Amino acid sequence: MDFAEYFPVFDRLDEAQQERLEKSAILKKIKKGTVMGSGSDDCLGLLLIRSGQLRAFIVSDEGRELTVYRLFDRDMCLFSASCMMNSVQFDISIEAEKDTEAWLIPISVYRDLMDESAVIANHTNEIMSARFTDVMWLMEQVMWKSFDRRLAAFLSEESVIEGSHMLGITHDRIASHLGTAREVVTRMLRYFQGEGIVKLSRGRIDILDEEKLRTLADGE
Amino acid sequence: MDFAEYFPVFDRLDEAQQERLEKSAILKKIKKGTVMGSGSDDCLGLLLIRSGQLRAFIVSDEGRELTVYRLFDRDMCLFSASCMMNSVQFDISIEAEKDTEAWLIPISVYRDLMDESAVIANHTNEIMSARFTDVMWLMEQVMWKSFDRRLAAFLSEESVIEGSHMLGITHDRIASHLGTAREVVTRMLRYFQGEGIVKLSRGRIDILDEEKLRTLADGE
Repeated sequence: MDFAEYFPVFDRLDEAQQERLEKSAILKKIKKGTVMGSGSDDCLGLLLIRSGQLRAFIVSDEGRELTVYRLFDRDMCLFSASCMMNSVQFDISIEAEKDTEAWLIPISVYRDLMDESAVIANHTNEIMSARFTDVMWLMEQVMWKSFDRRLAAFLSEESVIEGSHMLGITHDRIASHLGTAREVVTRMLRYFQGEGIVKLSRGRIDILDEEKLRTLADGE
Repeated sequence: MDFAEYFPVFDRLDEAQQERLEKSAILKKIKKGTVMGSGSDDCLGLLLIRSGQLRAFIVSDEGRELTVYRLFDRDMCLFSASCMMNSVQFDISIEAEKDTEAWLIPISVYRDLMDESAVIANHTNEIMSARFTDVMWLMEQVMWKSFDRRLAAFLSEESVIEGSHMLGITHDRIASHLGTAREVVTRMLRYFQGEGIVKLSRGRIDILDEEKLRTLADGE
């Protein structure tokens, strides 16, 4: 088990703490499309990603979704254990965007370690700060950036994540990431197509002009 | 000096830690309108508010402002010390909305205490979680709520903070809280006036129908 190698501050814990963590962590397989969190699942436990991809998102009363941040290999998901912290009072849902392998660390174990170890508590703080930074970035995007720039930034990011210029993603799915309606996405993608930036086909978007896309995303 | 009474987890620290905190904290008077943060001031130190009111806000490239959260008596301001945490990578500015008295705790002292004390580290975590909750609430507002509801919620909150139905606030100032242009605020306030919810005069807004304002804010 390579848990020790994946858990960031493992070396800085004492032996008893290391053992408690390692023994309690269970490696789980999470199928692509699985949604966790919101409601009773809130207190699933902490997830430490071995491989795969998760997205954290919020949902409006009308069922519209907005991706708040994404997690990749070696990232730790705090909000699958949000009940652990009294002051976290919002609902966030987690969805596996790819088949994911992650260690589930029980809340009771992690909470105890946080209480006794400044190392774990400060590490948790750093994770929280990183997610806070993600959310503040998103806030600036939704407040001050026009939708064409947000869509261009999203496609550009997707292309980096997938390592490809061919994106197998629906307009509906993009709408769920960006917190808007499918029609809005479709309209803007058609405009991008007209500009020669992308080529659209069913369930697929080909990026033809990456430079133009990046320039648009950067708002230059 | 009543610092001990204001610092939330003071009783749970050992004597040496208590002494270090108490000796290093300096009570400062911050005049209404003073802006701190962004750039070199980022690492001012932590502020523990004795009395007064601060707002934390972000600024767009074009100079438009958005209030992210507000702090009152006994609240602690972490982001006046954001350099303390490596993972905090966004700019936030702090403005005194009222004459404020606050203890300034030097970063070096607080950082040392965080490193050695799980109590302080976890307390910091709780503060961060509370601010995270504020920001997620705001995210939902700006994403899914129409501007009339946001403005109604803001006026209703102001009325509670001030303990009065007469608000001495300009349209420009409201725009800076809500991240929009003055004209947008003026237009919506005139609509509210037409509905008999408020009465507008120079630099002043009187709330005439609090119930209607709340109902609008709640979106019912």
